[in-house]
Amino acid sequence: MDYLAELKEKGAIAKKAAARLAVTPATVKNKALHAMADGLEAGADHILAANAEDMVAGEAKGMSTALLDRLALTKARIADMAAGLRQLAALPDPVGETVEGWQRPNGLAIAKVRVPLGVIGIIYEARPNVTADAAGLCLKSGNAVILRGGSEAINSNLAVAGILAKAAEEAGAPAGSIQLIATTDRAAVNAMLRLNDYIDVIIPRGGAGLIQTVVENSTVPVIETGIGVCHVFVDASADLTMAKDIAFNAKVSRPGVCNAMETLLVHRAVAEDFLPPMLAAYHEAGVEVRGCTGTMCYHPAVKEAGETDWATEYHDLIVSVRIVNSLAEALAHIAAYGTRHSEAIVTSNLESARRFQAEVDAAAVYVNASTRFTDGFEFGFGAEIGISTQKLHARGPMGLRELTSVKYLVNGTGQIR
Amino acid sequence: MDYLAELKEKGAIAKKAAARLAVTPATVKNKALHAMADGLEAGADHILAANAEDMVAGEAKGMSTALLDRLALTKARIADMAAGLRQLAALPDPVGETVEGWQRPNGLAIAKVRVPLGVIGIIYEARPNVTADAAGLCLKSGNAVILRGGSEAINSNLAVAGILAKAAEEAGAPAGSIQLIATTDRAAVNAMLRLNDYIDVIIPRGGAGLIQTVVENSTVPVIETGIGVCHVFVDASADLTMAKDIAFNAKVSRPGVCNAMETLLVHRAVAEDFLPPMLAAYHEAGVEVRGCTGTMCYHPAVKEAGETDWATEYHDLIVSVRIVNSLAEALAHIAAYGTRHSEAIVTSNLESARRFQAEVDAAAVYVNASTRFTDGFEFGFGAEIGISTQKLHARGPMGLRELTSVKYLVNGTGQIR
Repeated sequence: MDYLAELKEKGAIAKKAAARLAVTPATVKNKALHAMADGLEAGADHILAANAEDMVAGEAKGMSTALLDRLALTKARIADMAAGLRQLAALPDPVGETVEGWQRPNGLAIAKVRVPLGVIGIIYEARPNVTADAAGLCLKSGNAVILRGGSEAINSNLAVAGILAKAAEEAGAPAGSIQLIATTDRAAVNAMLRLNDYIDVIIPRGGAGLIQTVVENSTVPVIETGIGVCHVFVDASADLTMAKDIAFNAKVSRPGVCNAMETLLVHRAVAEDFLPPMLAAYHEAGVEVRGCTGTMCYHPAVKEAGETDWATEYHDLIVSVRIVNSLAEALAHIAAYGTRHSEAIVTSNLESARRFQAEVDAAAVYVNASTRFTDGFEFGFGAEIGISTQKLHARGPMGLRELTSVKYLVNGTGQIR
Repeated sequence: MDYLAELKEKGAIAKKAAARLAVTPATVKNKALHAMADGLEAGADHILAANAEDMVAGEAKGMSTALLDRLALTKARIADMAAGLRQLAALPDPVGETVEGWQRPNGLAIAKVRVPLGVIGIIYEARPNVTADAAGLCLKSGNAVILRGGSEAINSNLAVAGILAKAAEEAGAPAGSIQLIATTDRAAVNAMLRLNDYIDVIIPRGGAGLIQTVVENSTVPVIETGIGVCHVFVDASADLTMAKDIAFNAKVSRPGVCNAMETLLVHRAVAEDFLPPMLAAYHEAGVEVRGCTGTMCYHPAVKEAGETDWATEYHDLIVSVRIVNSLAEALAHIAAYGTRHSEAIVTSNLESARRFQAEVDAAAVYVNASTRFTDGFEFGFGAEIGISTQKLHARGPMGLRELTSVKYLVNGTGQIR
C-alpha cells in the first residue's frame, strides 16, 4: 500500500474511532490504559527483540552514542512506560467538565463543556517511549491518535503500538483509537500535514528542524512545542546565594531539556561579587562559559561569546553570560533572543519582580525560582505532552486539559431570534 | 515601497506597539476607543468622500447590487461603527484576569493570567465597517492589529483606519497599534500569511474562498471562522408548533449569515403532520425548498434536492429538507454534511436531547432553540470578532477573551529542582 492510501485509510478509521471515543466513559478508558500497561510488560521480550533490530541498524548507519542511547529500550524503560500509563489512569478525566455555565435573559441556558479535540497527529523522533506516552495521553483525553515516529525506531514503534492498540481494543476502547503509520517514507510526513479531512491537530515532538518543517508545511492546525532559549537575570538586589543556586540548577541539573537556562544575565552592580564564585562553580561542574568581555575578567576559562551564542539553545553543558547595566537592558536582551519559553529573575525588589513578570513575553515567568520547573508534572498537571511555545490554544506545559476543545450546549424552550 | 517592505516595516512597528499595549491600562484603552468613535463621527464627510470613490470604481467594475450595498457607507453606518467602539469601551478588560492560581507542595505559587495574543492580522473582504470593528476589538484586548481589507474598499478603509490610528495615538495608545496595509496587490496577502516573525495570529473574515486560501497558505497560526451548514432536526416527539417557529426563524430571519439553517431534517413519524404547514409557510415567505422525494409529496413547489444541496451553505432564502427514519440517521447526516458550526434538535424526549448534544460534534449544539443564537452578543460576550469553526484555541463565538492568550507567573523563594 502506498503511503497516501495508508494515511487516508488510517485517517478515516481514526475519525470514526474519535466519534466513539468522545462518548466513551472514563472507566472504559482507564481499563484500557491498565490493559495497555500490562500488555507492554507481558510483551517486553517481543518489544526488546524489535528494538534490537533498530539498534543494529542504527549502529550500522553510524548513529551517535547519544542517539543510540535514546533509541535503546530495556526492561526498566518498558516498566517506566507502563508506570506512566497507570499514572494516567489515576488522573481525572478532562472530558465532560463544565468549564462555565450561565443563563441568558431570554432563558437560554448555555454550558461550555470540555470535549476531545478529535484526531491528533503526533510526529516525533527517535525515542520509542513517546509512542506509549502519546498514545496514553490521547486516549485518556478521548482523542484518537495517529502516530508517526522516526524511521530509526520503526521496529520498536510497531511492536509497542501494536501491543497498545490490541490491548486498548480488547479492554473496550473503539478499534482504531491508536494507530501508527508503518511507512518510513519521509513524504508521508508532508502528506500527513495536509490531511485536514481527518486530522484535527498536529503536535510535533522533536528538534528545531522537525518543528520548523511542520510549521512551514502543515495546513492542519499545529501546536508548536519545545524550543527554549531561557534566561536567568540576577538583579542588583538579588540574594546572591539564592541566585547562584538557581543559576547553577537551571543550567546543570539537566542541560539537554528545553527548560534549561542557556544565558545568564547579571546586573553590573553585583557582577563583581556574584560572578567569581558562580563561574568557579560552573568550571568545576565542567560547564563551558561563553561570556561578554566584562564576564571574561572574572574567570580565566571564559571564552568570548559571539552574536550567535545569545540565540543558541545549546542543549549541553555550555552557558553564555552577559553583564547588563539595568533591568531594562535585561528585558531588551530577553525580548531580542528569548524564545518565549521560560524566563527568571532573581531579585528582592518588588518593583523589579513586578515589572519583569509584566513585561517579559513568555509562557512562564519566574521570580526567585529555577526555569527548570516549566513542566507538566512540576506544575501539578500529572502528565505532559510537551511545552507549547506558541500563544494560540495552549501556552506552557500541556497536560490532559490542553488536549481538549470545548463545545457550547444551549438549552431552550423554543427561543427564536 | 513594495508590499514586502511595507509588510515588514508595519510588522516591526506592530510588534513594538504590542509590547507596550500589553501593559497599557484599561483606562487608556477605553479613552482611545472613545476618541476613535468621536474621530469617525467628526471625520464622516472625509470617510463618505473616500467611500464614494470606491462606489464609483465598484459600479464601473460591474459589482453586484448586493456587494455594492455591503461596500456603501452612510452617516448612519458610521454612527453604528462609532457606537460599536463605545460599547467596547464599556466592557471589562480581559487582560490581567487571573484564570487560575494554585500553590505547589514545594511552595511555588503559580498564577495563570490572561495576556494579549500580540500582533493580530485580520484579512477581510468588502465591508469597510470591519475596519473599525476589528481595530476596536484588538485594541481593547491589548493586541496590535494589521488590517488587510479588500481592494474594492481601499479608499474607505484608508480613511477609516487613518482616523482610528490617529485618534488612538492621540489618546495615549502606543503608536502603531492600528495599521492598514495600503497596497492592494494580492500577493501581499500571501506574504502576510508567512510573516511569522511579526504576526502571532491571523483571523480571516469573509467567504469560503478567502478562508480556504488562508488555511492553505498560512504558516502563522490561524483561527478559521464562519462557514455554517447548520441543521435543525425535528424529532418524533417534537412540539410541532415550536418546531415550526424554530425552523422558520433559523432560515428566514437572516439567511445571509453563518448561523442560519441550511437543511431541515424531519423524523418520518411527524413528517405528515409537520411538513404541510411548514412548507406552506416557507412558500409564503418566498423560500425555495429543495427536498428529498418524500418531502416533495407535501408541497407542489418543492424541487428535488441533489447531493450537492446537502453540503451547500446557500446564504439565501433556499432550504433543503430531508425526511429521516431515526435520530441515528439525523446524526449521521449531520456528521456527513455539517461544518461543526451550530446544530439544533427540537424534541420533548430527554434521551434524544441528551444523545444529540453528546454526539453532535459542533461549536454549539441546541435543544429547542434556533441556531441563530450562535453569536457573541446573543451569548452575552458583548462583542464578537467571528465564529470559530475549528477546535483549537477558540470554538464558537469569539469575544474579547478569545483574543487573548495566557502566561504563567511563578513566584518562589529560591526553589530549585
